[in-house]
Amino acid sequence: MSDSTLRLLMPQWQGGNNAVYHFGAQLLAWLAPEHHGITENVPIPPPENILHDDTLVVESGLVARNALLEQINSAKHIIQRHQPKRIVTLGGDCLVSLAPFSYLNQRYDGDVAVLWIDAHPDLNIPQHFSHGHAMVLGNLLGEGDPDFVKQVVLPFQADRLLYAGFSGGEPYEIEVMKRLHLPSISAEELAHSTDGLLNWFKNTGAKHLVVHLDLDALDPHWFRSLLFARPVAEGETALPGIPHGKLRIETLVSMLEDIANISDVVGITIAEHTPWDAIALKQMLARLPLMQ
Amino acid sequence: MSDSTLRLLMPQWQGGNNAVYHFGAQLLAWLAPEHHGITENVPIPPPENILHDDTLVVESGLVARNALLEQINSAKHIIQRHQPKRIVTLGGDCLVSLAPFSYLNQRYDGDVAVLWIDAHPDLNIPQHFSHGHAMVLGNLLGEGDPDFVKQVVLPFQADRLLYAGFSGGEPYEIEVMKRLHLPSISAEELAHSTDGLLNWFKNTGAKHLVVHLDLDALDPHWFRSLLFARPVAEGETALPGIPHGKLRIETLVSMLEDIANISDVVGITIAEHTPWDAIALKQMLARLPLMQ
Repeated sequence: MSDSTLRLLMPQWQGGNNAVYHFGAQLLAWLAPEHHGITENVPIPPPENILHDDTLVVESGLVARNALLEQINSAKHIIQRHQPKRIVTLGGDCLVSLAPFSYLNQRYDGDVAVLWIDAHPDLNIPQHFSHGHAMVLGNLLGEGDPDFVKQVVLPFQADRLLYAGFSGGEPYEIEVMKRLHLPSISAEELAHSTDGLLNWFKNTGAKHLVVHLDLDALDPHWFRSLLFARPVAEGETALPGIPHGKLRIETLVSMLEDIANISDVVGITIAEHTPWDAIALKQMLARLPLMQ
Repeated sequence: MSDSTLRLLMPQWQGGNNAVYHFGAQLLAWLAPEHHGITENVPIPPPENILHDDTLVVESGLVARNALLEQINSAKHIIQRHQPKRIVTLGGDCLVSLAPFSYLNQRYDGDVAVLWIDAHPDLNIPQHFSHGHAMVLGNLLGEGDPDFVKQVVLPFQADRLLYAGFSGGEPYEIEVMKRLHLPSISAEELAHSTDGLLNWFKNTGAKHLVVHLDLDALDPHWFRSLLFARPVAEGETALPGIPHGKLRIETLVSMLEDIANISDVVGITIAEHTPWDAIALKQMLARLPLMQ
C-alpha cells in the first residue's frame, strides 16, 4: 500500500458530450507541477477532433452511458492497483471525481467531508438531463441513476458536504438540495473571509477532506478557459440562461490553503478546462506553411 | 547543408521587457505540430518569475541591449551551424525574427519578399522607445539602431514588403512608413479577399517569402492570449490608446495558404503569445493541496 499521492489523468469528455474537455485535460496536465509520485492515465477514447464529436448516442437517457461506466471501471482498477492514500485527479469533465472520491470515502471509513467548488449542483438525473457530468455529486451521495450509484460502495454523508461558489441549478437539483439540506457558501462571502468555510469543516467532525473543483466556479471575466467564456459574437452569450461562476483565483487559493491547514486533504479534482485560445492556436499552427 | 526546415525555439522576452513572452513561447512550442527535422533552443535567460521581471535596465536607450545582441548572436550561430533552407521561429517577442530573416535574405541573395502581419509597424528607434521588439522590421530594412542594423548583412528591399493587419503606429514610425513607401493591406480587405495580397507578391518579382506573424494582429475579441486582452477590471483597457489587431484566425490561415501556393515560403515567425489563462492556471495549480 503506497504512501504517495496518485495523480490520475482522466481526459473524459463523454460525460459532457464535449470534445473540448479532452484537450483541456492534456493542457491541464502539462501545466501542473511535476509529480514525483505515480501518475496514471485512464484510457479514454479521444474525440473525432479537438473541437467536435457528434458520434455519441443516448443510451437509456444518458449520452455514452456504457463508455462512461467503462471509464469509471478503468479508473477504479487503476486506483485499486495502487491503493494510494491520496489522489489528484486531472479531468476531463466533472464525472471524473466519481471513482477517486468513492475509493477515498471507503478507504477512510466515511470520515471524509466534501468541498464541492462548482457553479452548479451536479445533482441531475437522466430523466431531466442526458449528460453524466451533471449528476456526479448526486451519485456520490447515493442519489440518482442506479448504474452510477452502485459504483459508490459507501456514499458520502450529506451533512458533510459544502458547496462553494454555487451560482444556480435546475429545478430538480434545487429540490434535492432542499431535501438533503445541502449548504452552500457564496463567492462573495469567501472573497471576504474563509471563516465560514473553516467553521463548516470543523462542524462536520470529519478528519479528511476531498475537494472537487469545477473550473466553471471561476469568474469568466478573469479566467476565460471556460464554457461560459467561449468567444462569441458581440451581444451573444456562450451559454444563455445558465448562471456562471463568480470566484476569483486568489480567493480559491486562499480557501484551499486555509482549509488544508485544519484538514487532511486526501483528494482533489480539477475539471472542465476549456482552453479556447490554445485550441485555436493549435489548429492554426497545424495549417501554417512549414509546420506540416 | 541541410534540406530540412530548422525549427528555432526562441523564448526571448527581454525585447518587450515582458516576462510573459517567455512562458508564451513554451506553450506555443507545445502546441505546434511535431517537427520531424531539427529543433534548436536559443539559450535565453528566463525571467525572475512567470509574470514579472523588474531586473532589466536601459542600456544606451534600449532595455537589455547587450542581452538582446547576445541572443541574436546565439541564434545566428545556431543557424550558421545548420544552414537550413527554411526556418520556423517560435518566439518570444518580435525581435526573434531578426537573425533568421537576415540569414534567409542573404542565403537567397535578396530574392525574398516580406509579409509582416502585425498590428504595429515595428519601425521604432531607441530615441523614441526603449523596447527592442518595436524596432525589428526597421533593422531588417537597414534602418535604426546601428548595433542592430549591423546584424543584418543584406537588408531587405523596402519595395518587397507588405504589412498585413496593420492598425497604427507611433508618429516616428508613420514617418518612416511614408519615407519608404511601405504599403499595407487591412484586415477588412483580407477578410473579403486575398487577391490584393497575391497581387502584391506577384508584383514584387521575388521568388521567396518570409512571414512574420505578431499574434497581436489578431482580433482580441476572438483570441485573447494577447497583451491587448489581458483581463482587467470592467471599464478598464489593457493597453489604453494603442490600436489593437482586427484579423480573424480563419482569414490569417486563408492568407497564408493562398500565398504559399504562389511563393516559396522559406521563413515564418510566430511571436508575442501571452496566454493569460494558462499562466493563471499554472500559478494556481502550483499552490493547491497535494500538488506541491
